[in-house]
Amino acid sequence: MAEKKKAVVLLSGGLDSATVLGIVRAGGYEAYALSFKYGQRHRIELESACKVAKALGASKHLIMQIDLGAIGGSALTDNIAVPKNRDERTMGSEIPVTYVPARNTIFLSFALAWAEVLGAEDIFIGVNALDYSGYPDCRPEYIEAFERMANLATRAAVEGRSGIRIHTPLIKLTKSEIIRTGLKLGVDYSVTHSCYDPTAEGLACGACDSCLIRLRGFAGAGAPDPLKYQRA
Amino acid sequence: MAEKKKAVVLLSGGLDSATVLGIVRAGGYEAYALSFKYGQRHRIELESACKVAKALGASKHLIMQIDLGAIGGSALTDNIAVPKNRDERTMGSEIPVTYVPARNTIFLSFALAWAEVLGAEDIFIGVNALDYSGYPDCRPEYIEAFERMANLATRAAVEGRSGIRIHTPLIKLTKSEIIRTGLKLGVDYSVTHSCYDPTAEGLACGACDSCLIRLRGFAGAGAPDPLKYQRA
Repeated sequence: MAEKKKAVVLLSGGLDSATVLGIVRAGGYEAYALSFKYGQRHRIELESACKVAKALGASKHLIMQIDLGAIGGSALTDNIAVPKNRDERTMGSEIPVTYVPARNTIFLSFALAWAEVLGAEDIFIGVNALDYSGYPDCRPEYIEAFERMANLATRAAVEGRSGIRIHTPLIKLTKSEIIRTGLKLGVDYSVTHSCYDPTAEGLACGACDSCLIRLRGFAGAGAPDPLKYQRA
Repeated sequence: MAEKKKAVVLLSGGLDSATVLGIVRAGGYEAYALSFKYGQRHRIELESACKVAKALGASKHLIMQIDLGAIGGSALTDNIAVPKNRDERTMGSEIPVTYVPARNTIFLSFALAWAEVLGAEDIFIGVNALDYSGYPDCRPEYIEAFERMANLATRAAVEGRSGIRIHTPLIKLTKSEIIRTGLKLGVDYSVTHSCYDPTAEGLACGACDSCLIRLRGFAGAGAPDPLKYQRA
């Protein structure tokens, strides 16, 4: 029997990366899920990633610890206030304070290293160019440039073997389309987590950009959000 | 008085990156030195980096801890034997077991994040295409691809401000030329460290690829190597 193809999947615990893991598993890959403990303010994010990896049958789940807080510069690692109840038109027009400098570049670099060690050629990341509040490292031209660089960085490239592909199956989907895709594949969104500013008990705030986008997505998909919110 | 330009400099504790830091300081930059504790087998590497940063007047020296050992795949982090007394012609013809998968990609990604937070546009790395034993991520085409990707990854790129430059001042120099450059700038090579397999007391082995290349470099530069070796 032929060995299954291996894929490295970046997994945050949010609904986007959970959907990606669902897509990867439905595609017949052995999934190697990679998460990061990077000085996030909220432990619940990684707890969700562990639940998602288990629920969707990842072959391995590796959590890399990196101290992005030492570098600073983001509301997700520093003590900068997370904006609440912003108008949707404001969200996409500027880079938000929740942007973590070069985060996807760092995450994809570790994914590249792991792929090389595993002999995997496929890396999956749940970036989204429509709903993602204007982060520069979620755009297609950025992903293409990373893939090009990756194919000059590895043994495979030097030795003429086939190269690395960075897959972004969600990049052109709306949040509602992402949710509909995941629901068809049986992704259990009750174990995912999206909030930038949860309560001490782990309830989502319902008011940060990420909660607002998620709630709008479920409304558009015509499905109930199984998550508990602070304000119903 | 105008503020000095800031530069992020990758600093390993070896002679190449020490020379780069000397070049950066001579160029009038404020230097922000970045080192990594990445599961190296040898503590002496980081001790050397600290001494070099201090000796050459870095404004700040940040040591990021990352667990590359969890990913595996290299003699520098795993228990794979370091080759000794290899013929020089063998060194360049294959990728050595001391190659760490995607290491420079990971290191440059953190440098990019720090540069973005500092408002620095210049990143320096001491890669070398001639003497570096055929690592794929030391080649000029790789560095160019990283720079291109970096300029799509950052706030500056999105907001139309000027971009990131990856400087590789050593890329076309022989080891002897690197050493001559550093000596002219007053770099103290006695605090640097190059050996892949030092003794428990921190003495260089004199037989691994890195020691052989270093010793040949000093011989070619007509200068004595101030380092202590296990075998003289």
